Amino acid sequence: MKNKFITITTHIEGTPQESMFEIKTQILPPIESNDVIVKCLYISIDPYQINRMKHQSSSHTSVADASKITPGMEINSGGVGRVVASENSGYVKDDIVYGSLNWAEYTIVKNENTLRKLDTMEEFPLSYHLGIFGTSGLTAYGGFFQVCKPKKGEKVFVSAAAGSVGNLVGQYAKLFGCYVVGCAGTKQKVELLKEKLGFDDAFNYKEETDLNSTLQRYFPNGIDIYFDNVGGEMLEAAIVNMSPFGRVAACGAISHYTNSQKQATANMIDIVYKRIRIQGFLSTDFYTNDFKDFMSVTTDYVRAGKLCVLEDVSHGIESIPSAFLGLFQGENVGKKVVQIAQE
Amino acid sequence: MKNKFITITTHIEGTPQESMFEIKTQILPPIESNDVIVKCLYISIDPYQINRMKHQSSSHTSVADASKITPGMEINSGGVGRVVASENSGYVKDDIVYGSLNWAEYTIVKNENTLRKLDTMEEFPLSYHLGIFGTSGLTAYGGFFQVCKPKKGEKVFVSAAAGSVGNLVGQYAKLFGCYVVGCAGTKQKVELLKEKLGFDDAFNYKEETDLNSTLQRYFPNGIDIYFDNVGGEMLEAAIVNMSPFGRVAACGAISHYTNSQKQATANMIDIVYKRIRIQGFLSTDFYTNDFKDFMSVTTDYVRAGKLCVLEDVSHGIESIPSAFLGLFQGENVGKKVVQIAQE
Repeated sequence: MKNKFITITTHIEGTPQESMFEIKTQILPPIESNDVIVKCLYISIDPYQINRMKHQSSSHTSVADASKITPGMEINSGGVGRVVASENSGYVKDDIVYGSLNWAEYTIVKNENTLRKLDTMEEFPLSYHLGIFGTSGLTAYGGFFQVCKPKKGEKVFVSAAAGSVGNLVGQYAKLFGCYVVGCAGTKQKVELLKEKLGFDDAFNYKEETDLNSTLQRYFPNGIDIYFDNVGGEMLEAAIVNMSPFGRVAACGAISHYTNSQKQATANMIDIVYKRIRIQGFLSTDFYTNDFKDFMSVTTDYVRAGKLCVLEDVSHGIESIPSAFLGLFQGENVGKKVVQIAQE
Repeated sequence: MKNKFITITTHIEGTPQESMFEIKTQILPPIESNDVIVKCLYISIDPYQINRMKHQSSSHTSVADASKITPGMEINSGGVGRVVASENSGYVKDDIVYGSLNWAEYTIVKNENTLRKLDTMEEFPLSYHLGIFGTSGLTAYGGFFQVCKPKKGEKVFVSAAAGSVGNLVGQYAKLFGCYVVGCAGTKQKVELLKEKLGFDDAFNYKEETDLNSTLQRYFPNGIDIYFDNVGGEMLEAAIVNMSPFGRVAACGAISHYTNSQKQATANMIDIVYKRIRIQGFLSTDFYTNDFKDFMSVTTDYVRAGKLCVLEDVSHGIESIPSAFLGLFQGENVGKKVVQIAQE
């Protein structure tokens, strides 16, 4: 059986280019004992993958299930698929599964621990399991509730607020009773945040020349919680504008991913005197203890129409590279997913 | 009654100079109802005061009891003194008190809440209440146990390890069962850490050209806890060398205090992937809940000879400016105190 997959042609430092990706075809080897062959339906497209594509990054050593990506080899990611063949007693043909699948038509899953059968909840598209019911949702939920430890009425700032995680953080924060301001990179996204997602306010950071005074304008009495998806200058300005005992959830740093010069300069005097806490985290940290609660709360909210689902779906395996590149240009609105095959 | 006091001649940005300080003489006004007049015996000399001397700093707004210092006016600090006159029912002549006293021979205390009678514990010098039994000790104790949340066997790195707080952090960490490495700025301090204070290892940062590889040499398996008193390049290097789930106690940033260009560049990719926590704090945060435990544990350790007390005492009010300037040159070993008058 032939299998198309996407790979990188080289390790990537800086901004990724289309030429650094190629589509290859392999012949799938015969199925072996315990193997499960999964046909990919939807694959998750995430900015963090760029760190795995570098020559060196702490992503290679700090995260057990997301090690270095080697040019020419498969690239694994969260995906939803259908079992097409199984030599594993836990799975049968036509099971719908979530797991670590490749940027490929088919994945031979050799480690069943990276797979789980999906409660498909037929009322929802399967793609939701990559976004709002998947890693993005859990990151937003765990990051906001466990890392930020919010109190009702607190002032919350979210960067990349129209992104896969940011939009959910803002929505959870509003539902919880916080005051929420988001920033994004286009006028359309800003309007979406204010008009569709219920943010109290939002701004286009590309139109601002002095982020310190921008944040002072939106938070005259200080920021209690900053949910940081970008790092860099925005993080610096947020620290300057934080209230005493403010918390920074360090979820991502997309501005650093493609430009190591953009690292944030932390004003440690502010951090000390204002007793600011900066906490890095990954969604995997919440899986064991929080997934069940997260799913229950989130499905209820979606059913009740209180949480708005933002998805940005491309189609066909060939579209993976451009979908991925688009993340770094701010092209996606909400969760970026590629549909590889029809359900 | 005449009263000599030290003041600044100008707000100070950058490295403080002797010429920016002067000694002035005032006539003490008559005592009023509720006043307590305290003769200063020992006064605490602390790096953070430089932040209060600036035109602007988060120290002015974030800390209730340590607001801006104005040129020509008195400078308050932790001090130990003897009551010489009292119109306050809570205090009588000859009471020994701890409180917010001025860099002066006498202080008229108008707010009795800034004062407390001292259990002098005659076996110890009164100066200990400014260092090991005072703010430095509480900062080290609360910062290490409450902020760092150590586990036995963890690897701890302390900067400014021969300083007033650092030396105690290292000693508490050793007594608790951690592996401890400190850095300091002279050969003598390094020897002191290793030979007298029981640090597992120590190095002179001035002799190192690449702090990243220095820390890798001392912590080949990573740093679990970094107790940061300096900020800047040392903080950057510590983050690079931290283990997953590492904690940074942001206690001070002396390298930034006199040079705002020295701000640390935080590698947010490391912080995210390694789930690093950076937490600012002040000793006042621990006063209500931890002071009693701190005193009980610390006095027991000192009595048993398990904690070594490092004090650096100058004499006479005239020596305050040079004592203060010396902090930024790394001249002090342990807690810097000026004895203003004989007990």
